[in-house]
Amino acid sequence: MHYGALGPGKRLRPALVYACAGIVQGEHFDPARCDSAAAALECIHAYSLIHDDLPAMDDDDLRRGRATCHIAYDEATAILAGDALQTLAFELLLHSEAEAHLKVRLMEELAAGSGARGMVSGQAIDLAAVDHQLDLEQLEQMHRLKTGALICASARIGALLGGADEVQLGAVSRYADAIGLAFQVQDDILDVTADTATLGKTQGADAARNKPTYVSLLGLDGARQKLEGLYQEALDALDAVRGDTTLLKQLADYVAHRSH
Amino acid sequence: MHYGALGPGKRLRPALVYACAGIVQGEHFDPARCDSAAAALECIHAYSLIHDDLPAMDDDDLRRGRATCHIAYDEATAILAGDALQTLAFELLLHSEAEAHLKVRLMEELAAGSGARGMVSGQAIDLAAVDHQLDLEQLEQMHRLKTGALICASARIGALLGGADEVQLGAVSRYADAIGLAFQVQDDILDVTADTATLGKTQGADAARNKPTYVSLLGLDGARQKLEGLYQEALDALDAVRGDTTLLKQLADYVAHRSH
Repeated sequence: MHYGALGPGKRLRPALVYACAGIVQGEHFDPARCDSAAAALECIHAYSLIHDDLPAMDDDDLRRGRATCHIAYDEATAILAGDALQTLAFELLLHSEAEAHLKVRLMEELAAGSGARGMVSGQAIDLAAVDHQLDLEQLEQMHRLKTGALICASARIGALLGGADEVQLGAVSRYADAIGLAFQVQDDILDVTADTATLGKTQGADAARNKPTYVSLLGLDGARQKLEGLYQEALDALDAVRGDTTLLKQLADYVAHRSH
Repeated sequence: MHYGALGPGKRLRPALVYACAGIVQGEHFDPARCDSAAAALECIHAYSLIHDDLPAMDDDDLRRGRATCHIAYDEATAILAGDALQTLAFELLLHSEAEAHLKVRLMEELAAGSGARGMVSGQAIDLAAVDHQLDLEQLEQMHRLKTGALICASARIGALLGGADEVQLGAVSRYADAIGLAFQVQDDILDVTADTATLGKTQGADAARNKPTYVSLLGLDGARQKLEGLYQEALDALDAVRGDTTLLKQLADYVAHRSH
């Protein structure tokens, strides 16, 4: 669990929790109130990577520049570590600094984003898509579920912890939807333009597995246009948010223009 | 998820939820209030069986008289179905008929019983024990975590839904501890005395895997004595419970004296 959750990583989901909680509260923002929720989101993400890397799933040996969990330990340990990280995520949310009604709401967001109507169904579509031709709409739907749902849950959980109203919650959700998809488009671009050492995972892995990508469907230039469109969508969504959105803008810039 | 959760099974954990909620409320008991929680416990149990049966874990082909999930589908589907059943369990508890403070308490019980301090750590010890000699105390600790913790959580969640006070909660926990262990002792006895058709799983599987069992440590007669001692412990614990404990006594009798 420690190896899978606390190794190097971008910590995008925790960053979103803090950043979205902060915009609503401004200078009164106390980041410590978000620690449990931020850790919960990272635990769900870590569990999904550990299980995703298993031989029966994507069969990846390398993740974030290190051996994947089942290589460093063994398959059974990796399965159990992932299972217990999911439980820990819900446990962490239970211990967040919020009154009971808010905790229940946060857990609903986490469950919706990560379960059979969210992340896991995206992974199931992803596995079923190997060697099958997906069109752009199907590819987008897969990514919205596989990575977008949890990224959106991270932003919403942060906003709810920060006391967002429904208007702000809606804006933050649209922002998160856009950067969630942008993250994936940039992933697909980097899969063909960066090298393995920079990526920290095997370059060209998706193409080798014959998985559909934004680059295979749109070409490299088309994918780059798509990325800029999503980046702009994310910035536009923030127009509806009152408060300081500097951090969220920086996060969008990072997601769309990162080099690994 | 459907195949793994809704096939034939004993439904011991849901039965415990209903039975423990019922004793406190007596004739005013409305079983429907417990449906979500009962289903949640069964989902956790089902997810643990699906993952436990995987080739990297116990590598079982047969469960409850049917092909295990990864045989009926494939390994990746089985991993994801288990993952999503865990999420669904927390989601179901969130939708139980209880006010927010009670929901939070129920979820704490579920997380404690199923995660790295409960069921999953028992599975990890179980895997590490293959080909190793455990003494009686270590075997008991393994079972208390692997199956006992979730059985105890089922009883406690039921009791809490029924409005139990701390004294009743304590008594119900001692009862559940005893039948949880009794269940395992009888499992070990049946593994050597029943045939595959009656068990619905491969007879002699534990012995073949060189796993320590109550029978291998205590002999068949010693295991039977241990079982009767635990059965008596369960009945004794119920003496401290006010209300009608008929159902709980019948459950203890079933667990200790079942033929499969």
